[in-house]
Amino acid sequence: MPHIKVDDSLAGIRGLMNFRPETAEPLGALANALLKDTEGLTPAERELIATHVSYLNDCFYCHNSHGEIACIYLDGNRELVNQVRKDYEHAAISDKLKALLQVAAKVQQGGKFVTEDDIANARKHGATDRDIHDTVLIAAAFCMFNRYVDGLAANTPTDLSTYPARAKQVAEKGYGNHIFSKNQPVAENV
Amino acid sequence: MPHIKVDDSLAGIRGLMNFRPETAEPLGALANALLKDTEGLTPAERELIATHVSYLNDCFYCHNSHGEIACIYLDGNRELVNQVRKDYEHAAISDKLKALLQVAAKVQQGGKFVTEDDIANARKHGATDRDIHDTVLIAAAFCMFNRYVDGLAANTPTDLSTYPARAKQVAEKGYGNHIFSKNQPVAENV
Repeated sequence: MPHIKVDDSLAGIRGLMNFRPETAEPLGALANALLKDTEGLTPAERELIATHVSYLNDCFYCHNSHGEIACIYLDGNRELVNQVRKDYEHAAISDKLKALLQVAAKVQQGGKFVTEDDIANARKHGATDRDIHDTVLIAAAFCMFNRYVDGLAANTPTDLSTYPARAKQVAEKGYGNHIFSKNQPVAENV
Repeated sequence: MPHIKVDDSLAGIRGLMNFRPETAEPLGALANALLKDTEGLTPAERELIATHVSYLNDCFYCHNSHGEIACIYLDGNRELVNQVRKDYEHAAISDKLKALLQVAAKVQQGGKFVTEDDIANARKHGATDRDIHDTVLIAAAFCMFNRYVDGLAANTPTDLSTYPARAKQVAEKGYGNHIFSKNQPVAENV
């Protein structure tokens, strides 16, 4: 049960965002700017970074939500998403993305864990300043989103079959307040 | 030296925000919504929570920047800010703020560290749902800001005498893009 009174028809971070629209708006805008951007990293790569960091933070809601969104971008390749979630070093992804996931995993531990060698390794595999910036900020932002969701014990659907409908919505329409419609079936309100 | 090429005249997070304006805007808006709000928690209390979490995350730039802003709100009481930074339990602050700092410190460790007892303790001392929400999100947001700054090794002035000028600016004008003017003396660009 959530630590504060939220609308129970809204799952995960959505119940929290509905509780406090003033902070919901910049949170949605930040997610859009970081995850829907197509310059350098693809939306699929961005969601994979978010999924891996959320998995490291043990945030069930976030790593399943963002894993599903990544899955849509990857034509339903759930096996690849699972591999990146738990063991990206052996996943069928680019060396550049592996190097950036290494940076993201360091950020999850703390900013100072990122070393010059981690950055040099990412550059060696083609990462630009912008790719490195976005990777660090995606990882840092999910250290926020994950803590927001679990720190307030947000409603977390345990039935994984409810996640794809919402993921489809985000993949098509993006993050933000316009997706808080209460007129949707509850199953879509993940 | 920062891991990416930023404008060296802009200190800390400001160099990073200048590098990527698309993400800077929601980050500034989030800081304003969380830290300048006056409902429930005062701006001083909000900055003290930000300072304590940044101190726990060992982010020199953030805990000194936000400590200075808190100091302005507290009529220059730097001793109180230092006490909250390092040992809030013995600081001359309300029991409500102590209870909320306890919640914030749990969030810093991870969302799941927050217990029902932490929340009940905060409520016992008068915390509302909104106070609890804002405390958790401030703590979570600083787990992002701290990682953003240190994960990219942002320029961090070590001379503490440069922080008050910038703190005064934020206390008066708030967070956001309008404070990135490069026409200011470097000493104010903290």
